[in-house]
Amino acid sequence: MTGNLNGLGNFEGKTHHLPVSVYYEDTDLSGFVYHANYLRFMERARTEFFRLAGFSKMAGLEAQGPFAWAIRRAEIDFRKPARLDDLLTVKTLLTSLSGARLHALQQIFHGETLLVEGRIEACLVTLTGKPRRLPENVRVLLTPLLYEPPLPMDKP
Amino acid sequence: MTGNLNGLGNFEGKTHHLPVSVYYEDTDLSGFVYHANYLRFMERARTEFFRLAGFSKMAGLEAQGPFAWAIRRAEIDFRKPARLDDLLTVKTLLTSLSGARLHALQQIFHGETLLVEGRIEACLVTLTGKPRRLPENVRVLLTPLLYEPPLPMDKP
Amino acid sequence: MTGNLNGLGNFEGKTHHLPVSVYYEDTDLSGFVYHANYLRFMERARTEFFRLAGFSKMAGLEAQGPFAWAIRRAEIDFRKPARLDDLLTVKTLLTSLSGARLHALQQIFHGETLLVEGRIEACLVTLTGKPRRLPENVRVLLTPLLYEPPLPMDKP
Amino acid sequence: MTGNLNGLGNFEGKTHHLPVSVYYEDTDLSGFVYHANYLRFMERARTEFFRLAGFSKMAGLEAQGPFAWAIRRAEIDFRKPARLDDLLTVKTLLTSLSGARLHALQQIFHGETLLVEGRIEACLVTLTGKPRRLPENVRVLLTPLLYEPPLPMDKP
Repeated sequence: MTGNLNGLGNFEGKTHHLPVSVYYEDTDLSGFVYHANYLRFMERARTEFFRLAGFSKMAGLEAQGPFAWAIRRAEIDFRKPARLDDLLTVKTLLTSLSGARLHALQQIFHGETLLVEGRIEACLVTLTGKPRRLPENVRVLLTPLLYEPPLPMDKP
Repeated sequence: MTGNLNGLGNFEGKTHHLPVSVYYEDTDLSGFVYHANYLRFMERARTEFFRLAGFSKMAGLEAQGPFAWAIRRAEIDFRKPARLDDLLTVKTLLTSLSGARLHALQQIFHGETLLVEGRIEACLVTLTGKPRRLPENVRVLLTPLLYEPPLPMDKP
Repeated sequence: MTGNLNGLGNFEGKTHHLPVSVYYEDTDLSGFVYHANYLRFMERARTEFFRLAGFSKMAGLEAQGPFAWAIRRAEIDFRKPARLDDLLTVKTLLTSLSGARLHALQQIFHGETLLVEGRIEACLVTLTGKPRRLPENVRVLLTPLLYEPPLPMDKP
Repeated sequence: MTGNLNGLGNFEGKTHHLPVSVYYEDTDLSGFVYHANYLRFMERARTEFFRLAGFSKMAGLEAQGPFAWAIRRAEIDFRKPARLDDLLTVKTLLTSLSGARLHALQQIFHGETLLVEGRIEACLVTLTGKPRRLPENVRVLLTPLLYEPPLPMDKP
C-alpha cells in the first residue's frame, strides 16, 4: 500500500458505485443523516469516479495550473432518510459534458431503496474562482464514461 | 443572558436576515466555502427564522410528540464563492405553506452580491421519519410571515 | 449485499486498521485536512472497531435501553498534515476498560508516517446524558481485544 | 455594513467571549452536540479573538507570504453536553506566546455551567506546512492580550 489512492468503488457499465458507511458524525438529533451530508457523500463519489477515470481532482491538471471543481447547481430530492449503521451505495452517472461544464446524476441507495437523488452541474475553476474550459486530457478521459456520448459528426 | 435563544437576526418586512461569518471550518482547499456548507448556513437561517417566529425547532411541538424538520427537496444555484473573513447575510422568505409542507427561498449575499440561491421544501416528520401535518400552532405562527398568504375563501 | 454493515477494516493482532480516504470536504483553505476532522476519522475507526467486535454503537445495547458513546476526554497531537488524495490508515488500540469507561489509543498514518495521535476516553451514556456501567455483553466482547487484559485475581 | 468582519464577540479584560448558537448541523443522534464540533466552536472563537486583536487569520500576514494557523496539540475535556437551542459562550484566553507557537485556554459555557474545556497549542505554518516564527506585527498585537505577559528582562 503506497498511501495514495487509485480510486475506490467500481464501475458497472458507465455507472460508478461507491459504498459509504454512515457514522455518528453524519447524523443529527432526528436520528437520521443530516441533509447536507448527502452532498458530501455525493462529492466523495464524484471524486472516486474521477480517480478511477484516471485523474485526481487536482493532480493531472497541474500542467495547466492549479484548478478545482466547483459546483454550479444542485437539485436534490431527499426521499427517505439514512441511519447510523446503514451501508449506502452512491451511484454516479456522467450525463453530459460540454465545453466548460459537466452534469452528473447521483443516486444514494440503501439496499434496493432509493433514498436521495441529485442532479449536479459542475465546472472547473482556477484558484481565483474563474471558470475555464475542460482541458483536453480531462475530456479524453471522461468522454468514454458519458452516459450518451455525442454522436460523431457525419462527414459527407 | 439565560443561555437560551430567542432567535438571531431580524426581519425586514417578511424577509429574515441572518449574518453568518465564514470560518476555516467552512472552507476547502479551493480557498472558498465548501459547497455543502452553504446548506448549513441556510439551515441556520431557517432555524433562527422559526425561533423568531415564536417556536424552536423541537420545543413548542412537544405537546404533540417530538418532531423534526426534514428537507424534501433543495435546488441550489452556486453563483459566486464566499471566502474566509467574508461576512455573509442569509435572507429567508417563506413562499408557501400547505397542509404538510413549506417552501422557502433563501439567498446568501456578500454585501450587495448574491452568491448562492436556494429553494427549499421541508416538512415535519415524526421520530420514525413519517411526515405529518403542520400542527395548528405552527400554522398560526407562520402564516403572517408568508410572502403571499393565501386569500380567504369566499363565503356566499 | 444486505445494506447493513458488519464492520470495515481489519484487526492485526489487537490493533484495528481502517483505511480512510481524504476528500474535499475534509480539507480547509490551508490545503490540509481541517484539524477537527481527524477526530471524525478516529470516531469512524472506533465505530468499525466496535462493529467488528460484534456490536454496533446502538444495536445490541437496546435490550437495556438506548445508549450512545460519549467522549469524555481527548488528547490529540497533530504532527504532520494530511492532504487531498492521501489514503490514510487509522489504527485503534483499546488500552483500558473499567467499570464505566474505556480508553483508546488512535494513530493516523499516511504510509509509514505518523500524522496524528489521539488518546480518547469514552463512556456510555443514556439518552439523557447520564453515564452508565458498560453492560456485561459489551464487556465480554471487548475484553479479548484489550491491549493488556487485567490479570485474574489470585484466589488463595 | 461592508460585508467584511471586524471581529465578533467582545473582550472582558483579556478573556474573549463569543456567543455560539447550536444548530441541527452540530448535533448527532445522541441528541447532543457531536464531540468534534466543539473544536469547531473553539476555532471560531480563536478566529474572532484574532480579528478583534487587529488581524485576520490570513490577511495582515500576507506581506511575508501566505500563512495559516495549524493546531499542534489539543487537550479537550467534555464535561457536559450541549443541545439544540442552547446559546453557548466560548471564552478564550491566550496563555503563552513563544517564538513559534501560542497556547490558549478555551472554555465553553451554557449559562454558568462549564461544558467543555480545551487547551490548544497552535503555530503558524507556510502553505507547504512548515512552521515559522510569529511575525513581529502579530507578536505586537497579541502580547497585550496575553494572560501573563512575560516580565521585561532586567537590564543591568
